[in-house]
Amino acid sequence: MNYSIIRYILGTVLKFESLFLLLPVFVGVFYGEKTIWYFFAVAFMCLGLGALLSFKKPRSYVFFAVEGFVSVSLSWVALSLFGALPFWMSGEIPRFTDALFEAVSGFTTTGASILSDVEVLSHCTLFWRSFTHWIGGMGVLVFVLAVFPMGGGQTMFLMKAESPGPSVEKLVPRVRTTATILYAVYTVMTALEIFLLAVTGMPLFDAVTLSLGTAGTGGFGILNDSVGSYAPHLQVIITIFMILFGVNFNIYYLLLRKKPKAALRSEEVRTYLGIILASGLVIAWNIRKIFPHPLDALRHAFFQVGSIITTTGFSTVDFDKWPALSTSILVALMFVGACAGSTGGGIKVSRIVIMAKSVVKELFMVNHPHGVRAVKMDGRTVESETVRSVNIFLVLYAFLFAASVLLVSLDDFDLTTNFTAVAATINNIGPGLSMVGPTANFSIFSILSKWVLILDMLAGRLELLPILVLFAPMTWKRR
Amino acid sequence: MNYSIIRYILGTVLKFESLFLLLPVFVGVFYGEKTIWYFFAVAFMCLGLGALLSFKKPRSYVFFAVEGFVSVSLSWVALSLFGALPFWMSGEIPRFTDALFEAVSGFTTTGASILSDVEVLSHCTLFWRSFTHWIGGMGVLVFVLAVFPMGGGQTMFLMKAESPGPSVEKLVPRVRTTATILYAVYTVMTALEIFLLAVTGMPLFDAVTLSLGTAGTGGFGILNDSVGSYAPHLQVIITIFMILFGVNFNIYYLLLRKKPKAALRSEEVRTYLGIILASGLVIAWNIRKIFPHPLDALRHAFFQVGSIITTTGFSTVDFDKWPALSTSILVALMFVGACAGSTGGGIKVSRIVIMAKSVVKELFMVNHPHGVRAVKMDGRTVESETVRSVNIFLVLYAFLFAASVLLVSLDDFDLTTNFTAVAATINNIGPGLSMVGPTANFSIFSILSKWVLILDMLAGRLELLPILVLFAPMTWKRR
Repeated sequence: MNYSIIRYILGTVLKFESLFLLLPVFVGVFYGEKTIWYFFAVAFMCLGLGALLSFKKPRSYVFFAVEGFVSVSLSWVALSLFGALPFWMSGEIPRFTDALFEAVSGFTTTGASILSDVEVLSHCTLFWRSFTHWIGGMGVLVFVLAVFPMGGGQTMFLMKAESPGPSVEKLVPRVRTTATILYAVYTVMTALEIFLLAVTGMPLFDAVTLSLGTAGTGGFGILNDSVGSYAPHLQVIITIFMILFGVNFNIYYLLLRKKPKAALRSEEVRTYLGIILASGLVIAWNIRKIFPHPLDALRHAFFQVGSIITTTGFSTVDFDKWPALSTSILVALMFVGACAGSTGGGIKVSRIVIMAKSVVKELFMVNHPHGVRAVKMDGRTVESETVRSVNIFLVLYAFLFAASVLLVSLDDFDLTTNFTAVAATINNIGPGLSMVGPTANFSIFSILSKWVLILDMLAGRLELLPILVLFAPMTWKRR
Repeated sequence: MNYSIIRYILGTVLKFESLFLLLPVFVGVFYGEKTIWYFFAVAFMCLGLGALLSFKKPRSYVFFAVEGFVSVSLSWVALSLFGALPFWMSGEIPRFTDALFEAVSGFTTTGASILSDVEVLSHCTLFWRSFTHWIGGMGVLVFVLAVFPMGGGQTMFLMKAESPGPSVEKLVPRVRTTATILYAVYTVMTALEIFLLAVTGMPLFDAVTLSLGTAGTGGFGILNDSVGSYAPHLQVIITIFMILFGVNFNIYYLLLRKKPKAALRSEEVRTYLGIILASGLVIAWNIRKIFPHPLDALRHAFFQVGSIITTTGFSTVDFDKWPALSTSILVALMFVGACAGSTGGGIKVSRIVIMAKSVVKELFMVNHPHGVRAVKMDGRTVESETVRSVNIFLVLYAFLFAASVLLVSLDDFDLTTNFTAVAATINNIGPGLSMVGPTANFSIFSILSKWVLILDMLAGRLELLPILVLFAPMTWKRR
């Protein structure tokens, strides 16, 4: 293991975190809040420790998948630990586990909160919560790669470890340029949402925080009823942007390069949009009697579908009270998740498509014992390595899910609560059903359960293997 | 597709069913019940149709995996349809869907019932319900192979399609001898249980029916409280036999051949017993305050664990009322299931072991990008074909599970009911939680849900692919 490069990357990430922490300071200065000093202090700590760790250049820039996994996982742990400090030190979240839960929930774009009243928080804290969504959505390492010249040619391993999806591809040959394009598209789209929300009547602070949360498919709101009290047209704008941020960003790059045909051919995006359309219509029909006007049913159905499949987690109503068919569809969408290469979580549509195609392939092979057939996507053969990684992902996912539900059940809540709490965190969504429904929060759980769910959020965001590698003894044996 | 061999096998199976249907006739004659005429009539119908279908020898005895899948699946559908007729014609189960549900639940060794009062049923009906467990547990085709000389050398495909587990092996080179050994061991063990229960105080009829249900890991009881009202020592005997029938039968063959070392080396059986021990102890601790004496807690814990992991489904108490940790462990065991090559259902311990080992292999490969490592079990390398089939199984399982929960949720019951109803049927267990808990039954569901669950039971018993093949258009295209 190349420990020196891991140390160097960790230090660099912490230096970046100190910069990020200055943003809520600006917000706090504007609103004249004293909380800014805590952010300032933590920024200083990050800068100091980061400088210490990255002062000495690494002995070697050579690194492989395992170094990529370990440095990304440790970076996320460090980010979350320091990101939690302002919550805790300011006393706005008195217990450290809760503060860490909130920070991890932010960076991993989960949006599950342990707070029952977010409206008492200071503006700089609210802004920091939403900003962690934004930077966590596209990825901190991707951000670092975009703006900081990192030596060595294997930085692709960092991007692979942090970006979601069964096979991460570069848009252009250079990793740095790829990262820059991704963040450029991301920033422009976020700015566009802020603009549209603000000019159509949303207060600027609300527009900024909600847009950061939408972009990262995070889900922290700044009001206790999430997005429920905003005007219908604002909810519609947010619905559209949630769905847009759940699309594979490669598509936007193809559109920018004026290749709409290639963009439209994407099976993943077509499946994703198809699932949203079908689920939204079925739910709208299923809840038609709850709302006075069919358009209301449609708006609430598509908002919730968009929010859950993209794993954002905003809500406009308490969907825990909807009929079983609607809640079951939403629970199923929790697992499906967004597209690979988007800011969303979950299993990802592309993995689902690959799995479905491997079943069809199996049926073909039963019928043609000596036949040959490849799993294809967008007209190209999916490498067997990718199919294998999808299978491993599913297995790991099932094991982690089962173990988490068992541990959380020690708190003796009902199965629906335990099951959807794990589903909502491992898939980085936010709200579940029953006691962790849209109007409830995660404060009910014991310290142990909160740590389990913290682990689930991190494992879910980094797609399991990078976090698991941290816990495997063989990773730490000197070679 | 070799349709003529499928027709021939189907006919042969129906002729055997006519013989099976004579057994409840004997029971009914003994108790002087009029219901026997319905069984007699259906036996006659099976004989007629069976003779018609198998009168003409097949044009060719050549068949492959697809013919194996199709003939086994269709045989099970036919068995269930005719097996349901006596329930329906006698009026003991007035609606045909319910009668079919009960018959499929019997043959697939699920043991989920739509009856709220089984104590009013005639003895011959009670016997038939339990006998379907016994013959379905080890397999009808395996029985046919054991006693009926079937031409052609590829009968292994029949056994593979019907026997559970990721890789079905012959005990001896000849399929027929293998089938005979399996049924011999099975019969002797069943007889031993009947003997032990009867001599220690259980009425003979109860001993016979409960032993048939234990042997097939079925779960139909003949009393409304399942096994709750029998003496503690009888519950202990049943616990031990449930666990024994969940063991891979290869082990008994190894023991018979005086190879105890090879038998003890089986990783699957050791894992299976380890899971039972750990789960039983944790649950006993978790429910210690519910029962007056620690031994009661232990007895009930191990009975329920043995019943659920082997997918039998008997109960001694209403475990739906147990604390969340205990019910969550039981739900997890529903998915684990028994050993491959046993009469139990579920995902099977060997698949879980193979999955866990493929995760360890993945971790190894992350750390050694150019290393080579095989998944091994019992000291032998697991073929990549087997690993692949385990993955396909898991994917198919997840898809079928999700689709079933969505369809069942149309009935608008709670998520726990829908989720555990599907888990209890696809894994061939019987009781679930909430509205399908041990003291409840499946009569609450709509016709549509019952058909979905019927399909789940069949798909679960035949391990998914054989049933799926029936629905794939490419299976039916002439070649």
